[in-house]
Amino acid sequence: MTLDEYFLIGETVTLGSHKFEPEEIKAFARKYDPQVFHVDEEAARKSVLGGLCASGWHTAATWMKYNLEKRMETEGVRWTGPGPQPEFGPSPGFRNLKWLKPVYAGETVTFTRTALAHRPLAGRPGWNLLTLRSEGFDSTGDKVIEFDSAVLVKVG
Amino acid sequence: MTLDEYFLIGETVTLGSHKFEPEEIKAFARKYDPQVFHVDEEAARKSVLGGLCASGWHTAATWMKYNLEKRMETEGVRWTGPGPQPEFGPSPGFRNLKWLKPVYAGETVTFTRTALAHRPLAGRPGWNLLTLRSEGFDSTGDKVIEFDSAVLVKVG
Repeated sequence: MTLDEYFLIGETVTLGSHKFEPEEIKAFARKYDPQVFHVDEEAARKSVLGGLCASGWHTAATWMKYNLEKRMETEGVRWTGPGPQPEFGPSPGFRNLKWLKPVYAGETVTFTRTALAHRPLAGRPGWNLLTLRSEGFDSTGDKVIEFDSAVLVKVG
Repeated sequence: MTLDEYFLIGETVTLGSHKFEPEEIKAFARKYDPQVFHVDEEAARKSVLGGLCASGWHTAATWMKYNLEKRMETEGVRWTGPGPQPEFGPSPGFRNLKWLKPVYAGETVTFTRTALAHRPLAGRPGWNLLTLRSEGFDSTGDKVIEFDSAVLVKVG
């Protein structure tokens, strides 16, 4: 088994689908993003967005939730390559996050990730940087979020 | 009053300081980012991060919380320029988010933003795109997060 096979390089993996219920949208937004179009149906209808919709931070964090659920499955896969089982570490950050379309209350978003590449980090022996294309699509197939994420993986 | 004055272009604004308590770190992570170093002190100590630390998504969402609290103050400022009071809309996304250093439990992060520029959007008459440099610093002054964010503002 190669790292390419373990990380599923080049494959688009469906992580799961999440229905954004109004109460959940408002609960997240009251804590972190209390703009009128995220916390109040009536005010949202009169706002520039025309209705209650999820905070973009909420959509992004929900991608992470489903990404991790899927990763737990992968980590349960027996690593048969050389060296110890790869261990996922922190993320150094990501690029080009785009919130392409509002996610209105009641909408279901299907999240995916596509592992793009991995490379050893010169400054951190034994660690690789794995890059991913991360996406979410609504029930009409329109993309609502995308970003290029990265994660450090201990492979040595 | 010009839009540059209203948006405080070129000024770095301190948004507030937030202490990341262990219970809050775990509560966020259980919902959105249940990796061992975010949800369990004991397992975190044995992990690659060496201790319980906040999910990067939690740090980013907390920047948003303080950003909005400060913006509410600005929106209360009487707009004396031509046209109606500018109205903040959604964000199209952001670039180059970097989680530069773990935020361990008990750490206090001071969040800032610096308005960089604004420009009319050719495709959306009456709307400007405001770009911001967003940052967070720990109690030793080290930067823990930075990203280049943007927000649509109705100015027409």
